[in-house]
Amino acid sequence: MLREGRFKKSMDPDAAEYSTSLEDDPRLFGAVVEINMAHVQMLWEREIIDESSANQILGSLFKLQEEGLDALDLRPELEDIHMAVEEYVKEEVGEDVGGKLHTAKSRNDQVSTAIRMVLREEILEIQELIADFVGVLVERAGENTETVIPGYTHLQVAEPTTFGHYLAAYGQTFVRDLKRLNASYEETNRCPLGACAFAGTSFPIDRSLTSAQLGFDGILENTMDAVGSRDFALQTMSGLAILMTNLSRLCEELVLWSSSEFDMIEIPDEFSTTSSIMPQKKNPEIIELGRAKSGSVIGDLVGGLNIVKGLPQAYDLDLQELTPLLWNSVDQVKSTLLVMRKLVSKLEPKPENMYENAERGFATLTELANTLVRETDVPFRRAHKIVGKLASIVSDEGKSLGDLTLEDLLSASREIVGEEVEISEDQFEEALDLHGSVESRRVVGGPSSDSVEEELSKLEKKVSNYGKIIEKRRDSLDEAKEMLLDLARGG
Amino acid sequence: MLREGRFKKSMDPDAAEYSTSLEDDPRLFGAVVEINMAHVQMLWEREIIDESSANQILGSLFKLQEEGLDALDLRPELEDIHMAVEEYVKEEVGEDVGGKLHTAKSRNDQVSTAIRMVLREEILEIQELIADFVGVLVERAGENTETVIPGYTHLQVAEPTTFGHYLAAYGQTFVRDLKRLNASYEETNRCPLGACAFAGTSFPIDRSLTSAQLGFDGILENTMDAVGSRDFALQTMSGLAILMTNLSRLCEELVLWSSSEFDMIEIPDEFSTTSSIMPQKKNPEIIELGRAKSGSVIGDLVGGLNIVKGLPQAYDLDLQELTPLLWNSVDQVKSTLLVMRKLVSKLEPKPENMYENAERGFATLTELANTLVRETDVPFRRAHKIVGKLASIVSDEGKSLGDLTLEDLLSASREIVGEEVEISEDQFEEALDLHGSVESRRVVGGPSSDSVEEELSKLEKKVSNYGKIIEKRRDSLDEAKEMLLDLARGG
Amino acid sequence: MLREGRFKKSMDPDAAEYSTSLEDDPRLFGAVVEINMAHVQMLWEREIIDESSANQILGSLFKLQEEGLDALDLRPELEDIHMAVEEYVKEEVGEDVGGKLHTAKSRNDQVSTAIRMVLREEILEIQELIADFVGVLVERAGENTETVIPGYTHLQVAEPTTFGHYLAAYGQTFVRDLKRLNASYEETNRCPLGACAFAGTSFPIDRSLTSAQLGFDGILENTMDAVGSRDFALQTMSGLAILMTNLSRLCEELVLWSSSEFDMIEIPDEFSTTSSIMPQKKNPEIIELGRAKSGSVIGDLVGGLNIVKGLPQAYDLDLQELTPLLWNSVDQVKSTLLVMRKLVSKLEPKPENMYENAERGFATLTELANTLVRETDVPFRRAHKIVGKLASIVSDEGKSLGDLTLEDLLSASREIVGEEVEISEDQFEEALDLHGSVESRRVVGGPSSDSVEEELSKLEKKVSNYGKIIEKRRDSLDEAKEMLLDLARGG
Amino acid sequence: MLREGRFKKSMDPDAAEYSTSLEDDPRLFGAVVEINMAHVQMLWEREIIDESSANQILGSLFKLQEEGLDALDLRPELEDIHMAVEEYVKEEVGEDVGGKLHTAKSRNDQVSTAIRMVLREEILEIQELIADFVGVLVERAGENTETVIPGYTHLQVAEPTTFGHYLAAYGQTFVRDLKRLNASYEETNRCPLGACAFAGTSFPIDRSLTSAQLGFDGILENTMDAVGSRDFALQTMSGLAILMTNLSRLCEELVLWSSSEFDMIEIPDEFSTTSSIMPQKKNPEIIELGRAKSGSVIGDLVGGLNIVKGLPQAYDLDLQELTPLLWNSVDQVKSTLLVMRKLVSKLEPKPENMYENAERGFATLTELANTLVRETDVPFRRAHKIVGKLASIVSDEGKSLGDLTLEDLLSASREIVGEEVEISEDQFEEALDLHGSVESRRVVGGPSSDSVEEELSKLEKKVSNYGKIIEKRRDSLDEAKEMLLDLARGG
Repeated sequence: MLREGRFKKSMDPDAAEYSTSLEDDPRLFGAVVEINMAHVQMLWEREIIDESSANQILGSLFKLQEEGLDALDLRPELEDIHMAVEEYVKEEVGEDVGGKLHTAKSRNDQVSTAIRMVLREEILEIQELIADFVGVLVERAGENTETVIPGYTHLQVAEPTTFGHYLAAYGQTFVRDLKRLNASYEETNRCPLGACAFAGTSFPIDRSLTSAQLGFDGILENTMDAVGSRDFALQTMSGLAILMTNLSRLCEELVLWSSSEFDMIEIPDEFSTTSSIMPQKKNPEIIELGRAKSGSVIGDLVGGLNIVKGLPQAYDLDLQELTPLLWNSVDQVKSTLLVMRKLVSKLEPKPENMYENAERGFATLTELANTLVRETDVPFRRAHKIVGKLASIVSDEGKSLGDLTLEDLLSASREIVGEEVEISEDQFEEALDLHGSVESRRVVGGPSSDSVEEELSKLEKKVSNYGKIIEKRRDSLDEAKEMLLDLARGG
Repeated sequence: MLREGRFKKSMDPDAAEYSTSLEDDPRLFGAVVEINMAHVQMLWEREIIDESSANQILGSLFKLQEEGLDALDLRPELEDIHMAVEEYVKEEVGEDVGGKLHTAKSRNDQVSTAIRMVLREEILEIQELIADFVGVLVERAGENTETVIPGYTHLQVAEPTTFGHYLAAYGQTFVRDLKRLNASYEETNRCPLGACAFAGTSFPIDRSLTSAQLGFDGILENTMDAVGSRDFALQTMSGLAILMTNLSRLCEELVLWSSSEFDMIEIPDEFSTTSSIMPQKKNPEIIELGRAKSGSVIGDLVGGLNIVKGLPQAYDLDLQELTPLLWNSVDQVKSTLLVMRKLVSKLEPKPENMYENAERGFATLTELANTLVRETDVPFRRAHKIVGKLASIVSDEGKSLGDLTLEDLLSASREIVGEEVEISEDQFEEALDLHGSVESRRVVGGPSSDSVEEELSKLEKKVSNYGKIIEKRRDSLDEAKEMLLDLARGG
Repeated sequence: MLREGRFKKSMDPDAAEYSTSLEDDPRLFGAVVEINMAHVQMLWEREIIDESSANQILGSLFKLQEEGLDALDLRPELEDIHMAVEEYVKEEVGEDVGGKLHTAKSRNDQVSTAIRMVLREEILEIQELIADFVGVLVERAGENTETVIPGYTHLQVAEPTTFGHYLAAYGQTFVRDLKRLNASYEETNRCPLGACAFAGTSFPIDRSLTSAQLGFDGILENTMDAVGSRDFALQTMSGLAILMTNLSRLCEELVLWSSSEFDMIEIPDEFSTTSSIMPQKKNPEIIELGRAKSGSVIGDLVGGLNIVKGLPQAYDLDLQELTPLLWNSVDQVKSTLLVMRKLVSKLEPKPENMYENAERGFATLTELANTLVRETDVPFRRAHKIVGKLASIVSDEGKSLGDLTLEDLLSASREIVGEEVEISEDQFEEALDLHGSVESRRVVGGPSSDSVEEELSKLEKKVSNYGKIIEKRRDSLDEAKEMLLDLARGG
Repeated sequence: MLREGRFKKSMDPDAAEYSTSLEDDPRLFGAVVEINMAHVQMLWEREIIDESSANQILGSLFKLQEEGLDALDLRPELEDIHMAVEEYVKEEVGEDVGGKLHTAKSRNDQVSTAIRMVLREEILEIQELIADFVGVLVERAGENTETVIPGYTHLQVAEPTTFGHYLAAYGQTFVRDLKRLNASYEETNRCPLGACAFAGTSFPIDRSLTSAQLGFDGILENTMDAVGSRDFALQTMSGLAILMTNLSRLCEELVLWSSSEFDMIEIPDEFSTTSSIMPQKKNPEIIELGRAKSGSVIGDLVGGLNIVKGLPQAYDLDLQELTPLLWNSVDQVKSTLLVMRKLVSKLEPKPENMYENAERGFATLTELANTLVRETDVPFRRAHKIVGKLASIVSDEGKSLGDLTLEDLLSASREIVGEEVEISEDQFEEALDLHGSVESRRVVGGPSSDSVEEELSKLEKKVSNYGKIIEKRRDSLDEAKEMLLDLARGG
């Protein structure tokens, strides 16, 4: 143990338990072993340790890698996995040789390197989950480019659009989340190794070599910054919090839409629960959890920012508290994306009810106002007032969209502007037609089926491009790892 | 399973795992069993179920209580511990009898009741930990009523005070935390049972009876509010976040004061670690963790508020996500209080260094200004300017407090007001004396040893009063529990 | 200026603007003047300053109080209102006399005292607003004890209850908010004055006297704690965040319920807006803002906790940043309570639609299951399955509650348990009746009209008791203030 | 007013004040005018309105732009600046013509467009402030590549480094902040205009044209996503929160280092304040504010995430509450960067004290252990123990680094490994030499003067590259604006 030279008393057991990170460390196991492999090879390459020592250590590390985590002795007194790996090596090859493993390396740079190695894989996995989810959204959107839904503002029916247009909107949002995580990956995949405690080392190490062997895109230059910064984690956690916030909006709507009042979608049975007391219920519990987990992930981010705030350079143990928050966010996001993708892929829209809700909400009155402007040269604001009056009248009389007549409009017009607007019966009918209204909105990114199809094809391409980036990164990581293990095996 | 009547497909396995609360439910085991016991007794008392059924069910519950959690079959498909307990009873007494257990009860009221039962015990435990901690602070303060330390504002030495006065300040703070949790206990210890899903029941149940049997101080009246509200948890989490924020300040100072620059305290060896690379280090890691954990607890609170925000009545599964955040805060607070108390009890102040830092920081110049005001009738602001000039001169010359002479003062006086202040050599010396300055501050709550001793004795009394409240509450909970188990054993 | 003795350069203008608190200080004006009045009277009483000086200073303070804030010279260079008041006095009575005002007082204790004086008034005002709001809820609930609404869990119709029962639930919640602020008031109304910079003073001041003159309930004893702690503010901000979170839930439901799909309430015209482009819209914008402002208030709390975290004793300027967050929360809460109370008082429920939604959601199927248990001795879980089957059948056939027949039930029974449950046509009808079901739930706190009326009368009493506490506190503050001004006028 | 057609009652005045955004809207003034200009030109180009109407409206918009904000009538009843501009135009050109301005446009797309236009300028300004700040850090670092400071981990002196290396670390950090904001700019500078309420329009508008005229890099395609998403704001706020968190760490250290205990830097007089009661103080208040403001900015982010969480598409007024939080973060960040840059540029390091602190903390013992490894083939862990023992001995004896002798080391060696390590007097001295130790750490990114100089030159280049991107963006925005105003002037 490290304490031997310096302290007279052993650690208080409560304190030891309090400060151990062993609960979270298993996640880092593979990375820590690889870091040690790469480091030893570099030490040998630079002749800081001799070939025989290097070979012995590499051999024991390779053995450990094969045996897995269970081969380690994980006691609180060993503090963390970094110490445990070193102890293992010492037991295998003796203290004289094994003791060299720590030359020109510190837990400070090693822990940051290991977190980054695990996180970069998690980011890629999350990106794949997002890409798959967007894939499902695009597919479902494509099936529903003509499924009219009421579009809402302030949760009031406003104008008609389609379920396809709606799903495409989320597709766009999640592609931005994909992009944000792309930037997080770039920050994460920089190598701090060689920074040692924070001030580098006087040994003639080669930082670029270990960086490349471990699959990093380059080193994190300043050695103090390398061990003391966690903005790569905070940036990732921000990205995850924003992603979950975006997802929570979709969840909210699925909960609303599956209520018997909205009744616009059917949650698939295998994603519903019933009540212990109310037999008729079909509860969207999975979706509620997805909504709620955005809260936990935001909480993790707040915890992380709070931990880093006001922390002096270079390394303080406070940073150890940040890591479990990071992994919690990662895990919540992954499970939510997985479940929501499966759920959305089986979601059943109820087109009749969607249409009915749109009708009941007078969704095409805006279109009527637009028609007045276009066909009669009434200024928009005046058209707005006339149609507003019309809405007020029919709402008082309990009418629905289908009940409206041209006479209702003319009457409203007389009341507001003192004369009748000049619009034909046909124009009037056409303006109020839900499908017609949707199809007339051919603007780029708008709800007409053509617009949505065009949008979806672009969206698919975007996702596919991200897919290529992700794949390339994965390949590059895998190659580096394979090469490293090969070297170690030979060692 | 509940699904049988209603659904055609079984739960998706990923969804089942996603929605299970079984990881956190074991914490509720004891409470859930007791709730069922109390509920069954009440149903029998009110003749809602017959004696024989009641006895059989009680018998099986008592058996389960004896066997413990391991007797339960905890699979994700069973959703939660509430279902698992019911399944156990059904297996023991058959479905016909066991099926009656759910009469006039819902998971919604049961889960809220169980959380409250566990939380009230946790609150009492945390309160005891705080009381013990304040006890240690009072004790250490009592030993140090004459240990002069530099008092800081803006981390600049301002005026001298004592280590005792400083520790007493934290004593006061934590007593307020004790009080805040007292209020949380009051809110927590109200019984929602009988609210059922949220709308009560048409069975003639007796809510007061179950409430009393389970040791609650009374019922939570409105049945919708009873299942749908979590402000008792948010209030507790707020209290814990404020407590941890207060603790983080003490931690920050212990970190500062154990630096070689301040060097005013010695962290006991059994609470220190050393560096893997820097052999001379003695790191206050435990204290850093205490500081950092305030971040996690604040994060939990944010998560909790976020989850509850905008949630419609009466019950949504979002609330299930709040519970682990609550327990995480509870656990972090308990372990931090335990470790910090042990650490503070063994903390060694370094009086000589404390004194020296006070001297170097010219801690008594304020007292000198006060003396000028008192003895020479110079207005305070003018005295301030003269002494400010003095500070500027000696600071430029690199002098320390011990080097100051009356002539330095007179010279500053001449420069600022054009004449010499009339003050004797004795008055000058006395004003600058650190101990004398501290002892002269006899104001209530001030740093003089008498003031601090008086304060400590009041503080001790306050804590002891809280101790009595806590004890009384514990007794009352224990009695209720014993009586309930006795009844069940008899059943 | 304070800098004169100490510094060679004047403040950088950007830094001066950056550090000024003058934007928020006007809020403290009255309190600062009163603090100075009380302090001077105490100094004179304790013969620390002479009668003539005291009278002159008091006279000028009284004049300032009459003239109001505009009489002050508020420039960034004066840093804050505390300095500005002192400058005013010096200009009025000369520097020799005016300079005595700062004797035995510091900005550190003065600013904390002033914030507490303003905050206690704000807390009382918020409490009154809550009490009024609960009053409106109770009133509206009283009008609606028989207005059946569908009660929801997971936003699925679960069981019927009444609008009165629903409003009463919020009444209970907000009474707890009232109680939480009561505790905040107690912490806030403790006097730090006399703590000076943090170490008290060697002048023989009387802290109890100034405390009483300023209407405090007692002093904050430890002088370091007195200036360095802000947990009274954090506690208040937590209380406000929880209150807003509770309010946000009501807002969410009002938004939902005023949608054309739920269509259960009518937002009064004077609290609605329309769309710039969609003439038929009636937008619940006010309510959306109420919901959103919970976010800002939670953000303020997070900011506050973050600022205090890790802050060393006794005083750091970081604390100045906390105050605007506190006031922002206070202001948001006050305006939201005011507007929401007015809005709720004019809210129009739509009983027919409420009833219809309850029917459509099969709200009484639970009651049917209960009836089976009560009348036929089928165990609850089995009854649940039979009724669940029934729900599944009718849901597939698109039936509504009114369409259900006894035969449907018997058929479900046959399918699930292989035989028909023994229940009469009458029992069947009664169980499904919405009003009957509600009225049968006579449990304490339940939805029957009797239960709700009883609950409301207790609720009214609770609020009235809080009203008395608030009034007593207000009277006590007013008396103290009047007495103080009288003394100053005489001075 | 919009209400005319639809409502029978005018807005409640409290509600009007509650919902107005006029306080924050002036910030959007310029953008709103420009948006209207571009929109009208596009309408004319697409022959949706006639030339004469277009010319009249453009003329009045140009006049408004010249007159500025004061020309507008900003009353709460007008709700927001979008309505106020329209009212102005109608008064200028009559309602018949002016009423056409709103054709094919909604407040929903207009407000998002305006926020993005203002935010992109703010991002560029913040980026310039960061770039300037990094410039100052690089400059100061360049002056201090040989100024030895103690490097800390856990706030314990660990190893020596230089002030230059330390400042360079922050340079690297802030360059990453620059990069994060670069990504925010990209997301921000997409144009939602033409999305109208959320469902596009049936008028044949040209979204690309308005987008280009307003200087955007492209449109935000999906019209629902375009008005309903605020992740561009949340992403920016995250970036600002991380930036402020990074800054708060520097602030923390400047506060520590300017304490009389550390005494390693002198805060320039023009950025210091003194105490109202303690004349000797020189308070780093500006820096404390910088540290504290990180709390507010984190709070803003939390508020923002909270507001967006669970919000249904497409537009809800909740989003209006987010905007002031965004501007508050922007303003806090700008003023902090400005003041901190000025402060750091005048900061005076105290090299003697830095050196002394490093010596007192035994900063080179690690180097001694390294020397043992390199020169004597003792394994690292054993060397660590020997040197740890040495640290323990001398610490007990109160020695400092300068007092250590080779004999002390040999004695420790005997005690730990039973024999003396073989190391010469020269090697021993060299290892302990602070400057030598620093210079020996020539690793890339390490503290040797050569390493730091190389790092700084790369850092300068990075910043200069960002500078070019910023400049190019500014030019592009300016050009678009000029062209637009030219067209309007001609109109």
